[in-house]
Amino acid sequence: MNHVYKDDGFALHTDLYQINMIQTYWEDGIHNKRAVFELYFRKLPFGNGFAIFAGLEKAVKHLKELKFTESDIEYLRKELGYKEEFLAYLKELQFTGTLRSMREGELVFGNEPLMRIEAPLAELQLVETALLNIVNFQTLIATKAARLKQVVGDDTAFDFGSRRAQEMDAAIWGARSAFIGGFEGTSNVRAGKMFGIPVSGTHAHAMVQVYRDEYKAFHKYAESHKDCVFLVDTYDTLRSGVPTAIKVAKELGDTINFKAIRLDSGDLAYLSKKARKMLDDAGFTDTKIIASNDLDEETIINLKSQNAAIDIWGVGTKLITAFDQPALGAVYKIVSIEEENGEMADTIKISGNPEKVTTPGLKNVYRIINNKTGKSEGDYITLDYEQPQKEKSLKMFHPVHTFIKKYVTDFTAVDLHHDILKDGEQVYNLPPLEEIQSYASGNLSLLWDEYKRTLNPEEYPVDLSQACWDNKMDFIQEVKDKIKSEK
Amino acid sequence: MNHVYKDDGFALHTDLYQINMIQTYWEDGIHNKRAVFELYFRKLPFGNGFAIFAGLEKAVKHLKELKFTESDIEYLRKELGYKEEFLAYLKELQFTGTLRSMREGELVFGNEPLMRIEAPLAELQLVETALLNIVNFQTLIATKAARLKQVVGDDTAFDFGSRRAQEMDAAIWGARSAFIGGFEGTSNVRAGKMFGIPVSGTHAHAMVQVYRDEYKAFHKYAESHKDCVFLVDTYDTLRSGVPTAIKVAKELGDTINFKAIRLDSGDLAYLSKKARKMLDDAGFTDTKIIASNDLDEETIINLKSQNAAIDIWGVGTKLITAFDQPALGAVYKIVSIEEENGEMADTIKISGNPEKVTTPGLKNVYRIINNKTGKSEGDYITLDYEQPQKEKSLKMFHPVHTFIKKYVTDFTAVDLHHDILKDGEQVYNLPPLEEIQSYASGNLSLLWDEYKRTLNPEEYPVDLSQACWDNKMDFIQEVKDKIKSEK
Repeated sequence: MNHVYKDDGFALHTDLYQINMIQTYWEDGIHNKRAVFELYFRKLPFGNGFAIFAGLEKAVKHLKELKFTESDIEYLRKELGYKEEFLAYLKELQFTGTLRSMREGELVFGNEPLMRIEAPLAELQLVETALLNIVNFQTLIATKAARLKQVVGDDTAFDFGSRRAQEMDAAIWGARSAFIGGFEGTSNVRAGKMFGIPVSGTHAHAMVQVYRDEYKAFHKYAESHKDCVFLVDTYDTLRSGVPTAIKVAKELGDTINFKAIRLDSGDLAYLSKKARKMLDDAGFTDTKIIASNDLDEETIINLKSQNAAIDIWGVGTKLITAFDQPALGAVYKIVSIEEENGEMADTIKISGNPEKVTTPGLKNVYRIINNKTGKSEGDYITLDYEQPQKEKSLKMFHPVHTFIKKYVTDFTAVDLHHDILKDGEQVYNLPPLEEIQSYASGNLSLLWDEYKRTLNPEEYPVDLSQACWDNKMDFIQEVKDKIKSEK
Repeated sequence: MNHVYKDDGFALHTDLYQINMIQTYWEDGIHNKRAVFELYFRKLPFGNGFAIFAGLEKAVKHLKELKFTESDIEYLRKELGYKEEFLAYLKELQFTGTLRSMREGELVFGNEPLMRIEAPLAELQLVETALLNIVNFQTLIATKAARLKQVVGDDTAFDFGSRRAQEMDAAIWGARSAFIGGFEGTSNVRAGKMFGIPVSGTHAHAMVQVYRDEYKAFHKYAESHKDCVFLVDTYDTLRSGVPTAIKVAKELGDTINFKAIRLDSGDLAYLSKKARKMLDDAGFTDTKIIASNDLDEETIINLKSQNAAIDIWGVGTKLITAFDQPALGAVYKIVSIEEENGEMADTIKISGNPEKVTTPGLKNVYRIINNKTGKSEGDYITLDYEQPQKEKSLKMFHPVHTFIKKYVTDFTAVDLHHDILKDGEQVYNLPPLEEIQSYASGNLSLLWDEYKRTLNPEEYPVDLSQACWDNKMDFIQEVKDKIKSEK
């Protein structure tokens, strides 16, 4: 196997064009020019009304540990033919930039900078691919989990998705993201170890088959585990599984905690109600019912509308792959670049697709909280120098349909960006995971209900300040004039 | 950050219930009972007519390196409260079993065992989650890539998906799987290093923005790279990008290879045809056109039907996430277990969902090749003792609609399983990646065209032998009788 490198690192976890551009910059002597890139997505996933930002902790780790290893340099030399002087430069390269970012668990929306990075040009290019790879996935799953948790409500939700995840990193970082989005735990033990997430699990059909008999299997499990959850659908849920679980629990009495039964196939609404009655009639009114089997928002809403007697929802495939939209399209675009004279100048990218036109300049994102209602009026994107928190009245207008506008007074403008790294040094304490989770769920109360519907929510306002909008329009005009004059 | 363990291993990359079951087996003294599990999926992904098996190399690595680390044991002790004697047992646990498997690049279909593992019960349970996690994703992406390559035809296809992949493992193992499925290369440098996959890439919009001028940017790139591909859509593809690329190439003449231009937005059919004409008129008839921008099978077929002048297709999101079906539902089920008397006995799992009923017994999969046509008549699943290669005439019948049947004579029955591990020792040479790729593409010639359509292909026969089918029906009856007699 040729993929076993003892010194495998992540500097090469990038697209080749980044290294080719760095080579051009380096040969041209501009690789240390300062520049600013912003990371953002354009459109909320799943038709949801909000997203939950995740990925910062791993992104910070990536930036701090960025370093080409011996075998990386060897590969670039031997297989890709880069020159020695350039390789010598790469070998010393580390991330020395400044990162401002949303915190994990933050409510985020389309077209607002989630991260803003200022650094030497070469470093900025090198890290693009990995940052997007990390933030795209983790934000996607945290958001999916929050949607699922919205419909699960006060019941409990567990991640059971590892076996269907897109390879191993997705299983564990997906479990972490799901926890941020509101899930109570995961079945993946490694995720439990790495992140301190509660882990949960009992036994599989295989165990019943091993003992060839449900009664014997449940008995044996109960002999080795005080807390018992019995999987009841190996042969026949209502005729065999549930009665056998009850029989074993009655026999063993107080020596076990008959915590739950688990249903994993068949009509979960019908079976759960029948099973509930059987449990209640036998006196096991505290025994819960866990359900799993390709659950998603829609099936859960449906089961609940039929009064399914399910207390704990085990969600696998649909959560861990974000099945109905398995990619978030976050991008990473340059917004400012150092001039010959050392000053920073804004920059724009035009495109055949209007939504792909970038918004030039260093930007901040403020959440405008109405002091009377305690609810958010929307997010307000400003140029770096603006200070909306000092304004008495704020004009907020839609960045495409500009006639949609409102004036907000008596508000608090909360800066959503935090200083994370300064000149390569970490200046932010990464919070414990539980704190991130409660920050996310607490934050949801800032939104009116109409933004939180899982189907067809209202569009939450994400507006550009007048200065930011004017600046963008000026740039578009400038590029157009330039192209015209060159003809 | 609490997830940094120097001795991070993958033994804990499992669902908690596996460890709980192992504990029950261990306390009951049956953890070393021999058993056999089979890994298979039920339904082909994407409505495709076939799948391409991938994941074996990493699965083998996982099994060979299976070992709880110090910090794993510590976690199980402190956080999950397992007892010392049990932990002492886990600490010594390694994989000592026997693996038979399809080879990577094999054409595979629903309900046939891709892997068959015989081992002590505890080991079999422990590895389930990781094996499914690996094989599900890699087989899914190899299959998606093969579909895309079918429609790309003789053009070139590259994986550009890293930034949208579901975390880092998915990016690199996805790149490898895409190569197996027929892709020519990837943009991910780390995947290139780890697996020897050709890497490809040039420059991004950012480079044009850095130089604030396409002419200058292309010039600078050309000064540092002999082979040039220019990205032409930063400002205006036809009015600025393509003419500038041509201008620079003309000026630099033989000092560069003007290999290609790349289009990344707008109407790719229209733009590519216009750009082709401009390139040809300027004498650059060998310069290729690369296109990217959310491509999938359907867009590619459409662009081709409009005679888009695209030579190289860069596929990202839709490939690397298997966007239209981001999970393959492979499962891992016990089919045989050691009896008290030391003999192996078949076992079955019944379910409320008929397709979830397992097929008992150790099985082999034969591909039945018609000696006259050289094409496959279908796959034929037998019990372990059967030898279809010695039969003169084979009755093949549909496992659900049993009246659909045929008799095949003059055939070659090819055993699709290979010995990979024997009692924990590797007995199979993992082939180089290029060999896996050509095996996959060569194998496709075994299929009639009707199985290879990307839309509504015919159903390829995957049949049970009569003995295998009878055995299954007997087991179903036996379980039903048992449940009835217990009432």
